[in-house]
Amino acid sequence: MIILGVDPGLTRCGVGVVEAGASRRLSFIHVDVIRTSPDTSQDLRLLSIYNGLVDKIERFVPDTVSIERVFAQANRNTVLGTAQAAGMAMLAAAQRGIPVALHTPTEVKLAITGNGKADKPQVERMVMRILNLSQMPTPPDAADALAQAMCHALRPAGALQGGEREQHLTAAQRQWAVAAQRAKHRRGVDRGM
Amino acid sequence: MIILGVDPGLTRCGVGVVEAGASRRLSFIHVDVIRTSPDTSQDLRLLSIYNGLVDKIERFVPDTVSIERVFAQANRNTVLGTAQAAGMAMLAAAQRGIPVALHTPTEVKLAITGNGKADKPQVERMVMRILNLSQMPTPPDAADALAQAMCHALRPAGALQGGEREQHLTAAQRQWAVAAQRAKHRRGVDRGM
Repeated sequence: MIILGVDPGLTRCGVGVVEAGASRRLSFIHVDVIRTSPDTSQDLRLLSIYNGLVDKIERFVPDTVSIERVFAQANRNTVLGTAQAAGMAMLAAAQRGIPVALHTPTEVKLAITGNGKADKPQVERMVMRILNLSQMPTPPDAADALAQAMCHALRPAGALQGGEREQHLTAAQRQWAVAAQRAKHRRGVDRGM
Repeated sequence: MIILGVDPGLTRCGVGVVEAGASRRLSFIHVDVIRTSPDTSQDLRLLSIYNGLVDKIERFVPDTVSIERVFAQANRNTVLGTAQAAGMAMLAAAQRGIPVALHTPTEVKLAITGNGKADKPQVERMVMRILNLSQMPTPPDAADALAQAMCHALRPAGALQGGEREQHLTAAQRQWAVAAQRAKHRRGVDRGM
């Protein structure tokens, strides 16, 4: 199963591709950053991001496109452009019938390190270890996109399947359920996303 | 000159088309609302809006697509979906080489009524009068999309052309310059959009 992760952004949009094999073994396939200039008009920046994402999707033919979930509470300076870049990824996937998953930064940290409050270096070390990379891809948007793709493959079984299974969850699944519940609550606030 | 106005939204996305002739005479061409259900996933909603907008653009072949400018300070419940719907309109226009204009609600009110703080009924009455409509299109998203298209045609000459002409502005042009300046300041805050 090929997963294409997207760390959306208007200036730098990270794209990371991993393959999930048997026993959730993950292999690194590709990582890149699509860049646009703040001197370009908004519509042409979105067109560049869209075209860049379409190129990646057609090249790697992912089974799922996993995108960082954006919240209205995020950095006001960049949140609208980030939401629009995420929208470009959703459109490019939906046009090809590819399922879209949205994972919050907390879900990503939890799936990769087992700790939803892990700091960036902890997450990066685990990404390098799991994917057998000799060095971490830069800029951070590239690493975040890989982590987003990995999150979708590594999230605990039973995650997001609702309350009826909660009493049988492992510790990791319980942590995930709490994070998912919080995201659901915030989704209520942010129905736009 | 054909102008296609967009009042972006995820649940209801208004589209209004007007033709601007000699002496800024405006004629009504088309108005519609693209609707998506909150029960549908975000990616498929954006795909529906994008496809609906592409249909309108290919049918009416506008010279400009004029879209309401979204601010991060707007309603947190809907702002991200609104920004993404605006992104779909920008992409659909940019893919066809059609210039995109963004106008704030204050600019729209100012261009149509001469008063940037006009209330909705005042704006609607002027839209009906200018376009010779016997009744106002509903829902409000349809009316707002027409007003957005009209704003682009009716904005004062010299609007948005910078400070060097300010000393020669008419009263309407001065009001516009103030509104544009405010929008520019807010754009600084909202560089994402």
